[in-house]
Amino acid sequence: MSETKLTHFDESGRAKMVDVSNKSITTREAVATGAIFMKPETLALIESGNIKKGDVLAVAQVAGIMGAKKTSHIIPMCHPLMLTGVSIAFDISESPDKRGLRKIDISATVKTKGQTGVEMEALTAVSTAALTIYDMCKAADKDMIIGETALLSKRGGKSGTYIRGGNK
Amino acid sequence: MSETKLTHFDESGRAKMVDVSNKSITTREAVATGAIFMKPETLALIESGNIKKGDVLAVAQVAGIMGAKKTSHIIPMCHPLMLTGVSIAFDISESPDKRGLRKIDISATVKTKGQTGVEMEALTAVSTAALTIYDMCKAADKDMIIGETALLSKRGGKSGTYIRGGNK
Amino acid sequence: MSETKLTHFDESGRAKMVDVSNKSITTREAVATGAIFMKPETLALIESGNIKKGDVLAVAQVAGIMGAKKTSHIIPMCHPLMLTGVSIAFDISESPDKRGLRKIDISATVKTKGQTGVEMEALTAVSTAALTIYDMCKAADKDMIIGETALLSKRGGKSGTYIRGGNK
Amino acid sequence: MSETKLTHFDESGRAKMVDVSNKSITTREAVATGAIFMKPETLALIESGNIKKGDVLAVAQVAGIMGAKKTSHIIPMCHPLMLTGVSIAFDISESPDKRGLRKIDISATVKTKGQTGVEMEALTAVSTAALTIYDMCKAADKDMIIGETALLSKRGGKSGTYIRGGNK
Amino acid sequence: MSETKLTHFDESGRAKMVDVSNKSITTREAVATGAIFMKPETLALIESGNIKKGDVLAVAQVAGIMGAKKTSHIIPMCHPLMLTGVSIAFDISESPDKRGLRKIDISATVKTKGQTGVEMEALTAVSTAALTIYDMCKAADKDMIIGETALLSKRGGKSGTYIRGGNK
Amino acid sequence: MSETKLTHFDESGRAKMVDVSNKSITTREAVATGAIFMKPETLALIESGNIKKGDVLAVAQVAGIMGAKKTSHIIPMCHPLMLTGVSIAFDISESPDKRGLRKIDISATVKTKGQTGVEMEALTAVSTAALTIYDMCKAADKDMIIGETALLSKRGGKSGTYIRGGNK
Repeated sequence: MSETKLTHFDESGRAKMVDVSNKSITTREAVATGAIFMKPETLALIESGNIKKGDVLAVAQVAGIMGAKKTSHIIPMCHPLMLTGVSIAFDISESPDKRGLRKIDISATVKTKGQTGVEMEALTAVSTAALTIYDMCKAADKDMIIGETALLSKRGGKSGTYIRGGNK
Repeated sequence: MSETKLTHFDESGRAKMVDVSNKSITTREAVATGAIFMKPETLALIESGNIKKGDVLAVAQVAGIMGAKKTSHIIPMCHPLMLTGVSIAFDISESPDKRGLRKIDISATVKTKGQTGVEMEALTAVSTAALTIYDMCKAADKDMIIGETALLSKRGGKSGTYIRGGNK
Repeated sequence: MSETKLTHFDESGRAKMVDVSNKSITTREAVATGAIFMKPETLALIESGNIKKGDVLAVAQVAGIMGAKKTSHIIPMCHPLMLTGVSIAFDISESPDKRGLRKIDISATVKTKGQTGVEMEALTAVSTAALTIYDMCKAADKDMIIGETALLSKRGGKSGTYIRGGNK
Repeated sequence: MSETKLTHFDESGRAKMVDVSNKSITTREAVATGAIFMKPETLALIESGNIKKGDVLAVAQVAGIMGAKKTSHIIPMCHPLMLTGVSIAFDISESPDKRGLRKIDISATVKTKGQTGVEMEALTAVSTAALTIYDMCKAADKDMIIGETALLSKRGGKSGTYIRGGNK
Repeated sequence: MSETKLTHFDESGRAKMVDVSNKSITTREAVATGAIFMKPETLALIESGNIKKGDVLAVAQVAGIMGAKKTSHIIPMCHPLMLTGVSIAFDISESPDKRGLRKIDISATVKTKGQTGVEMEALTAVSTAALTIYDMCKAADKDMIIGETALLSKRGGKSGTYIRGGNK
Repeated sequence: MSETKLTHFDESGRAKMVDVSNKSITTREAVATGAIFMKPETLALIESGNIKKGDVLAVAQVAGIMGAKKTSHIIPMCHPLMLTGVSIAFDISESPDKRGLRKIDISATVKTKGQTGVEMEALTAVSTAALTIYDMCKAADKDMIIGETALLSKRGGKSGTYIRGGNK
């Protein structure tokens, strides 16, 4: 990585939106993951508490999908892209971790057919879904923690396939 | 917490924006924190590498402040609020953690004079700043992790002061 | 009404955003209603078809609430307002009408504490929810009709209470 | 239609933005129509009253065109699309209907060259134009009704041509 | 001015949204002006050419009013404000200047009742209206120049009244 | 130019978004320039005053790039486009002009691969950057003037290359 440069800056050191005009149009996909950690009682409220089961996650899912579409307006140097597919999945942990917290795993898959990748769209979708869960449960629990947000994989484009923990 | 209900749902179990019409207008403040973890080489690029020192963080700071202002458009059940102040601070860790990663701590302070609090605005500012750092460094390092995003404190409003780890 | 003027125009006949600087800040509420008409088979799909019951309406509800918050960016002469509450309700008709269509009634209640009313926010919420139902069912049925969108009531402000069909 | 499934849901019954990555890029067009009904006195104000003739419709036209461009931010599961053309037309009814109301017919034509259709963009343009007319006239008449919003036709794409009332 | 500091930066020299939490809520007004210069033939097209008189300006007026409402999303450190009134006026020059260009003067008046002023909203309205005129005429004339955009006056708030060219 | 028509209007004289469905997809580039004029003391504050050198321009640069991406939401008849590159440069004048004012020249280069040009995106980027500089310095100097905003060049598309002051 010693030769790597950050590409988002021009010769005078100022930020720019990187020129991708000459990159080829290919199908691209990115998957990002994250999690929100909370007291077991809070997760119980989401699962079966005083509300219709699943609705917190239904709202978070809509928020995540809409968040993916807003990425280029939220992240300054992101290129606008015509997303061709966005889906979000949740997985609820069975048992508490060492801190006594249970978690909801969030993953987002985003696709496009364009000149640059959708890593930021997937990460933004996960972050938006996590923030929405926080918002809807914060009257009951302000101690929740959002964490472990990372890129799981990307496919398509010149830099090829990336798999987290694998060989680049 | 046994009696707590999630407030974002109506009697039929559907999501709503909670009615705060009768809450009093007070000065409110929230502080949220988060971090982005990366390889020491990546942090070195941000600090003193091939780019003007600080510019990644300058862009992230602008993104975080603008993100705070977009909160009610990103988080479905958030009330629109006239923010009266937003500031963001970064703190760069000196040494790597057990995983060999260094981190940038991000904190956001948001204020308003209104009928409901600004916890989500502070959390959204932190998340947006972290995502922006990821975006600007991802050509060099796709393994970065965004984590530990949480509310540090809130002041003002009927529910009073909250300090993370303290007595509510 | 003979003396009534349209208030959204200045002396030269050009559009403006009406000056409400001197109107008093009061609690205001508006309720709007609308409906979407569809084949009984389409409504059956929403109710109990191949999908989890209620999800189309859950998405429509989130869309309607977010639509209310976007009103001043969608309707050119609308004032920005800090909404203090938004809720949306659906009511599914039991039997088909004369055209053989069943319908979903949509109602939106919006509140604010401000210098002008929230009629447009309520109407926009209803329209957005109806459009979202159309979007989610259009692969099955493109013949759906959105109709009967109207203001049911408004309260608060100098012009006082309006009840549809009642005395102004 | 017995075999039809709603496409906007994944296997676990959650909402998603349908994957259109493999659909071909074709020229697509959709036409939607709608109407706003009002007292003859209100329509007279729009036509020739105290204001420059046509200005209410000029504002509604701009709003409708801008609304079409916002569709993917308003309707949660809509794909972002690069619209290549949007036009809106109004037609004012000559005489009152059975309820004594006159109406303005609104139609919107939207085009794109992309992987999915523009039905929602056309419907959103019509709805936005109608809501804008309501907004600009509501000081004079709160009884207006927005109705009959429907898809008139669509062309292009795998599902082919749709003409309202015709053979699919 | 020797003691003046730029207020938009924190102690570490980073940008922030200035804290106005303790400023009092007062009625505030700002007026900004600007102009767009063009060939006489282009202005003739706007005035009486192949199009309905005034329509370019009608679209520019709507754009300017909507632009004022978007200011806090466009200008990074601007506070969100509930605008209580926006109006825009155009004045067409009778004769060409020394360069042989005629001009359209644009002025925008913006009001709010809040904790900070609306100078940026008025300037953004003027700029947006000018850009819109450019857009609508650029097929005929790409040489147009937008210029002389400045604050004419502001009233209200702690810093009091400012009149361009007068005593501050 | 005698035969030129303004293309943004339909046969009835109403505004429309011009249909570019049949234009070919080519690489397009536009460069726009502008300037902000201010007292030498104000420019000194930006250059070396009480703040970290360059930060006003760093914020303006981010604002300009994000402004370019918002163009189709700000300018009513602009087509949405997937920008493939945006960069902004500043040049600070050495000495005052006849009015005793120094200036910052702003230029923006925008690229896309699409069916219509990016002149408006470049002009909007310049205007947004200039407004942001005004915003960040207005506590010190309200007399600043934004001016000379114009298209410098465009390349690509059926109408070919345009160079300001050159042969069209």
